[in-house]
Formats: sequence, C-alpha cells, structure tokens
Amino acid sequence: MITTKSALEQFKELDEKITHLSTVSALVGWDQKVMAPKKGRMLFSKAYSTLETEIFKLMISKEMGDYLTELTTNKDNFDDVTNARIRERKIFYDKFKTIPTDLYQEYSTLTSEANHIWEEARANNDFNHFLPYLERIIEMKRKFAELYGYKSHPYDALLDEFEPGLTVEKLDPLFAELRKVSVELLKRIQHSSTKTPEEIFEKTYSVEKQKEFNKYMLPIIGFDMEAGRLDETIHPFAQPMNTGDVRITTRYLEHNVRSAIFGTIHEAGHGIYDQNINKDFEGTVLRNGTSFGIHESQSRFLENMVGRSKEFWKYFYPTLQSYFTEQLGETTVDDFYKAINTVKPTFIRVEADELTYNLHIMVRYEIEKGLIAGEFIAKDLPTIWNKKMEEYLGIIPKNDREGVLQDVHWSFGGLGYFPSYTLGNLYAAQILNTIEQEMPEFYQNIESGRFDLIKNWLTSKIHQYGSLISPYELIVKVTGEELNAKYMADYLNTKYSKIYDL
Amino acid sequence: MITTKSALEQFKELDEKITHLSTVSALVGWDQKVMAPKKGRMLFSKAYSTLETEIFKLMISKEMGDYLTELTTNKDNFDDVTNARIRERKIFYDKFKTIPTDLYQEYSTLTSEANHIWEEARANNDFNHFLPYLERIIEMKRKFAELYGYKSHPYDALLDEFEPGLTVEKLDPLFAELRKVSVELLKRIQHSSTKTPEEIFEKTYSVEKQKEFNKYMLPIIGFDMEAGRLDETIHPFAQPMNTGDVRITTRYLEHNVRSAIFGTIHEAGHGIYDQNINKDFEGTVLRNGTSFGIHESQSRFLENMVGRSKEFWKYFYPTLQSYFTEQLGETTVDDFYKAINTVKPTFIRVEADELTYNLHIMVRYEIEKGLIAGEFIAKDLPTIWNKKMEEYLGIIPKNDREGVLQDVHWSFGGLGYFPSYTLGNLYAAQILNTIEQEMPEFYQNIESGRFDLIKNWLTSKIHQYGSLISPYELIVKVTGEELNAKYMADYLNTKYSKIYDL
Repeated sequence: MITTKSALEQFKELDEKITHLSTVSALVGWDQKVMAPKKGRMLFSKAYSTLETEIFKLMISKEMGDYLTELTTNKDNFDDVTNARIRERKIFYDKFKTIPTDLYQEYSTLTSEANHIWEEARANNDFNHFLPYLERIIEMKRKFAELYGYKSHPYDALLDEFEPGLTVEKLDPLFAELRKVSVELLKRIQHSSTKTPEEIFEKTYSVEKQKEFNKYMLPIIGFDMEAGRLDETIHPFAQPMNTGDVRITTRYLEHNVRSAIFGTIHEAGHGIYDQNINKDFEGTVLRNGTSFGIHESQSRFLENMVGRSKEFWKYFYPTLQSYFTEQLGETTVDDFYKAINTVKPTFIRVEADELTYNLHIMVRYEIEKGLIAGEFIAKDLPTIWNKKMEEYLGIIPKNDREGVLQDVHWSFGGLGYFPSYTLGNLYAAQILNTIEQEMPEFYQNIESGRFDLIKNWLTSKIHQYGSLISPYELIVKVTGEELNAKYMADYLNTKYSKIYDL
Repeated sequence: MITTKSALEQFKELDEKITHLSTVSALVGWDQKVMAPKKGRMLFSKAYSTLETEIFKLMISKEMGDYLTELTTNKDNFDDVTNARIRERKIFYDKFKTIPTDLYQEYSTLTSEANHIWEEARANNDFNHFLPYLERIIEMKRKFAELYGYKSHPYDALLDEFEPGLTVEKLDPLFAELRKVSVELLKRIQHSSTKTPEEIFEKTYSVEKQKEFNKYMLPIIGFDMEAGRLDETIHPFAQPMNTGDVRITTRYLEHNVRSAIFGTIHEAGHGIYDQNINKDFEGTVLRNGTSFGIHESQSRFLENMVGRSKEFWKYFYPTLQSYFTEQLGETTVDDFYKAINTVKPTFIRVEADELTYNLHIMVRYEIEKGLIAGEFIAKDLPTIWNKKMEEYLGIIPKNDREGVLQDVHWSFGGLGYFPSYTLGNLYAAQILNTIEQEMPEFYQNIESGRFDLIKNWLTSKIHQYGSLISPYELIVKVTGEELNAKYMADYLNTKYSKIYDL
C-alpha cells in the first residue's frame, strides 16, 4: 500500500531521475553525431544502448505504473504543473509499457548503429548498404504499431508519438487542402513571366565568411550563445540539454550560401524555444517542447515568416553584402529577397522553398503510411521515391543520395516524424496571423532588428509553457481556434502573388 | 540461492552495465569541461550526479556483493580474465560499500559544482571563492578515509584509491631518497657556470602555428587521430571512452610554446595507453589502465624520456623551426635541447622541469597528508603552500593563482592522486632502463621517427593488459624488480650532468 502523499513524492523523484538520465542520453546522442571520432562510435553505441534501456525500464517500471494509478485518481488535489507531469509520464507509460524490454533494447542498439551506416550509405550513394538496417527498423516499427494499438490506421500509432492525438484521418484532409493550393500556385508560378534572380547563388561563397556571418546573426535573432553552441554536421539539428545548454548545428556549403543561413535560422528557432522554457520545469518531463509539430512551428516561423521576409533582409543584407562584396555587391536587397524566395521543385527537402517543401513532406508521408500498412517494402523504396517525386514535384532525382537517402530520420527510427514539419508550417502561419494582429509593428520590429520583442511575444505565448499545455490546447489558446490549413494557403498565395506578379 | 554458473553470467552482465554507464559518465565529464556552454553547466551537474549515483548504487549493490561472495570461492574454475574482472570489482565494492548512498550523492553533486567554482576562483585569483567548497570536500574525504578504514595513516585509505596497496609507510622512503638526490642535484646545477639558452622561449609563438605543429606531431608519436580527439582546456587531461575514442586536451599559450608541446606529448602518452588496451576487454572493468601511477608512467615516459631527449628533437626540430623561423631560425638543435631541459624552480607544476617536478608533488603530498590527518585546515592553505614552496623549491608564489589554486585535483575530490605523478616518473625511469636493454636501438628509433616501434614495445609489455595485471605485478613482470627510486636518481644525474657539465 502506498499513500497518495508518498506516491506523489516518489513520482516526482522518479520523473526527475528519468529527466536527468534523458538529458545525459541527449548529450551522448549529440556527441556521437558531432564530436565522436570515427573508430569509437560503433563501440559507444553499446554504452548508449545500455543507458537508453535503463531509461526505458524506469519509464515503464512497476513503480511508475503504481504511482500513475494512484495519482490519476487524485487529480483534483494537485496543481496544474503536477497534473501535467503526471499526464506526460502517463502518455509515455501507456505507450511504451506495451513494448517488451528485450525488443526495445534491440531497437535501441539497431537505431544507434543504423545512424552510422546511413551516414556511410549517404556519403557513398549506396542504398543497399543501408537497406538491411532499414528493413529491420521498419519491421520493428510495424511491430511497435501493433503493440501500441490504434483505431483505424496502424500509422496512427506512430504519428501519435510525435503529435499526440494526430491520425491519418485528421491529417489526410489538411494535407489534401494544402496540396491542392500548393500545386495550383506552383503551376501559376511556373507559368509566370516574372523570374527571380536566383543566379546570384551560383557563385562560390567562402565557408569561413559564412561562419562569421552566421555567428554574427545568431545572437541578434535571439539565440543566447552563452546558453548554447553552434556546430557543424551533415544534417543540421537542435538538441537541448537544459535551458542553459541548447546545441544546434548547421552545414556550410561553398556553392550554396543559403544552406547555412536558413539552416542556422531554422535550428535557432528550435533552440530559442528550448532556451526559454520556464526554468521551474528543469528536471521534469515538462522541460521539453509540447510536441514535434509545435517545436517545428517555432523553427519554421523564424526561418520563413521572419527569416525569409523582406524586412529581415532590410536589416541583415547590408552586413551580408559587406561579407560578400564580390558576390552580392551589385545585387539590391529587393532582388536578394526575391532570389531567396525562388520557387522551384528541387530534390533536397531541407533546401526546398516554402511552397514545394510541403510536397516533399507529402511524398514521405505517403511512403511511411504505405510501409507501415505493409503496402510497400523497403527494397522498392528507391523506385517508389522517384515515382512519388515525379507525381508531386514533377522531377526525378538522379541518384539515391539526392533521393531516398537524403534524410536521417528513418535511420533513427523516426517514422511518423515527417508530418510534423508540415504541421509546423501550418501552426506557424496561423501564429503569424495572430502576431500580426496583436503586434501591428511586427514587420517594423524585424526591420529595425528588434528580434527581442518577437522572441518575448513567442516566449510569453508559447515557449515558457514547455509541455505544460498540450499542442491542441496551445494553438487554441494562442490563436483562438484549432489548426486550420487556410492560414498557410493564404500566406503562400499572398507572398508569392507579390513576388511573381500573379 | 544462486548457482555459480548463473552468478558468473549475471556478474558479467552487471560488470558490462557498470562499464557502459561509466563510459557515458566519462563522456559527460569530458563534455562539461570541454564543450558545455557556461550557463548550462550548473544545471547539468544535477543530471551528472544522478548518473554517478546510479553507477555507485550498482557497484555496491546487494547483487554485486552476492556474486562476488559466490565467485571468489570458485576462483580455480575461472580463467585469468574472469578472475581479474572479479578482483577489480571487488576492490571497488569493498571500498565503496562503506560509503552511504546519500553521502556519495552529496559528494558527487559537490565535486561537480566545485569544479566550476574552482575554475572561476583560479581565473579571478580568489581563493576564498573556492574555500567553502574545498572545506566541504576535505571534510568528506576525511569521513571517507574513516569509512574505508586503514592500518596506520588515514591518508593510506585515499592513496589506495589511485594506487592499490600504496601507503604512507611505503611512499615516505621513496620520496625521501628522491628528495635527497633532487635537492643535491639542484644545488649543483644552480652553482654550475653552464647556462641553457632559455631566452629563446621569451618570444611570442603564434597559437595558430602551435596548433598546426601539435596536430602534425600527434599522429607521428603514435596517437591515432581516428580513434581520438585533441581539444583545448585550461588544465590539460586525457579521457578514454573506449579504445576507438580517447580524448586529450592541451592548452596554447602565446608566450610559452613549451606548454602545448609537452602538454600534448604528455596527454598523448595517456591516450596511447588507452587506445591500445586489448579490445577483448571493451565493456569490462579491465578496459582501464591498471593504476594512476602506471598510467602516469606512460605519459611521463613519452613526455620526458622520449619527448625531452635530444634524439626526439633531431627528428622534430627542423619542422618546428620551419613553423617558427623568426623565433628559432638562429638556434641549433643542441641549444634547443638544452633550453627545453632547463632546470629552474618555478611556480607551476605542469610546466616544471623533470627535476623540480617531483618537489612540486612532495609539497602537495605533505599538504594532503596534513589535511587528512587534521593537522592543517583549508583556510590556512595559501600560507602553508607558500611556506612549503620556499622549503622545497626556494621560491614563493606571488599569488594563489600561481600557488594553491593552480591544480584542478582538489576540486574533483582527487586527494591522494598527486603522488601518482611521481610514482609515474619512478616507473618511467625503471621502464626506460629495461627498454634500453631490450631495444638497444631505442634512441636511434626516436631519431629516425620510428615511434611505432616504441609504441609496439610498450603495448606488448604494458598497454594491452589494461587492468588484467595489478601495478605491482606489472612492474615486476616488465622490469624484473619492484619499484626502485634509484633508476630515477641515476637518470636525473646522468642527464643533467651532461647538460650542465657537472
């Protein structure tokens, strides 16, 4: 028999312990991608897996189950923060207690190894090198979906991991509406006689100078460099440890100056969210963002709604120009703005424009749904990928490196993750609509470099809450309504109509 | 009831789990010193402490105790590797099971925080900032000594943590002999009319070029850069994760080119040991060096016996000269050799010459003995430090930054560690005597850059064994006798007699 009081205290201790060990695990994950020497990574994956298994065991332990049972019957006695901690741990518990420990350990070792193999496969354009790992990951994810359980589509079980409550049934109409608008708009753009001066990017931009510019820009847009790091990886990502230690990465390409700039702004959007969560939530499950979709809304908002606005470049362009006199000396800020907003179907998702980006996501979404439903098998993915790319974007990659091997997600088992990106875009457009109303000087603030005011608004409305409020409640609280694709549709139509004189 | 067979299997699993979590913990330690942003470190120390506590609990768990009891009665049935794993875990168990979990957790949090505080105190030359932490650390260490137990001196209990079996009784005569020889030799050197051209180091050496030279030198002397990293910290150190991931650090000073060079060679000596332990020991307690003294012997051997030899610089000096034409263009290799072997009492241990280095250690040894015996209190340390420095080296530091605050060790609770450095020197000189006999072309190999041959000898005689063989057995196995201070005495006398024409 445990009493309610001791159950609450013990639950809090256990929540803290899991959060602390998860912080350590996050650090290991970051280190192995960013810092670890080549020969040590396979060896380290065993230590990583041991830690992950320990965390997993704690999250689904009998003690956790007992505390949750006891505490969920006493909700009325607890404050909101306590109830949110219970809610978040219960989501994990109910899901993961269905997975046998052995299976999870196997999965953990597999994905840790698969990540390194994927990197090699991508570097060597060798899908078959990655295939056996991918096959095993998909097989396990299908097993997980069955174990988690779902109402109508097995993929729902995986979606729910990243966006609680999300289903194929909800997603299909949102994506259908967005696809319709996007494809129509894309056609109108492709038929427009207005062209953007994209050729300014067909030049060499010194990596050293790119680094300097990114390091100059990052603190101005709101990322606290004393509470974070900026490093380099093939695939940029953001990883928080705590509010005082948020690590982001970018990649510098000599022949693509946009890659690092917008990659950095994107990851800074994630990072600023993590740096500004209520410090009282340190050491609790609430110290994470509330969902992958909401997290992505913050990175996409900063990257696109802010970073691809004309006002952003009215502020930053003179400095960028001074770093790259030779390349940009003759280009006006207006032309630069048009050039960075060029719409053109391309192969690489992370470098896609705002319009075609969502079509990239839909390709992955359709493939993942099919894989989990057992309609496709991994071996056929290069063919299926290329077919879908032609269907959605009208282009076919020349090789798997530019195609099916481009993304890290499957290598770490992240099936169900991709839709978060487009959800993030939808959330971001809806949040933009609200901030434009509540802060009429929004674009003026960007133009005068007052990113602190925008960060403060986002922190007070979104960041501070961490996981206290669920994504569904949060978007209603901030914008006054549920997620609605029309804001994104309007945003895209307005923006590109001006740029392409439609 | 557990059967022997299942006890053995379960013991091995537990040993592996502890080793894996310790690897993760080592990574956290490295990261927080080398990579972590300022604002996150205090927050991360709680997560670190949670992990350390988990490891500690496993090392002294009832299960571990049961397995050890069962297995130590069945030694004859197991191979040497299994028995060594049992022996090493038993050493930890017998020692640490005496410490209550709460006390260890408090200690772990304290030392993690104290490390950051020490860095601040050292940077600001502010002993009082560090004092309250130091007081608590000493208090706890005294408590630990009582809990561990000891025969004659409480400091024995702490020495034993770093060099199993070492006592004040054994150490005092070794140190007395060495002190006598060192002080006499120092006087003769100070009275010699021969002076070394140390003024060549009173110049500015570009940090960028120093970095280039160190990165050039490191793989040649045997450190595998694909199985390790070289980074920068205030206090250089080496940290192995596994044989494929060994991380070392150095520090670059514009006005002291020797600091980085010999710091790098020193840490490379540690790193090469860790990179060449038998790969079959991965995931077991045997994958560490057998003692701090033996580990230090490998770093001191490479730094001094190899790195401060004339032959070493016959090989490397032309390259160094080409990096620093302005500073070294007029200096011959013979003069450079003499300059790097200048003997002169100075304040900073890590930059001391081979002769006075051990006197620095003796100062710390005497202080630690006194602190643990309760003869000194922490508040008086700056005064005591300066008095001892005058007594042993004839000089008094101008401030605490150059005095009592210079070393990291006390901040992480490493009382009992310092004697390992001089033990390392004694082991190294004794090993040098053996290698000179077994490899008559030893110096010729250095001169021709065949560091691989020297590394192979050390690997076959020492590195490969990890903790399979105890330090006492190892030195007898390699050199044919117990540790003997006369080899160091002879080495110092021979070397400096030539340099200073004594």
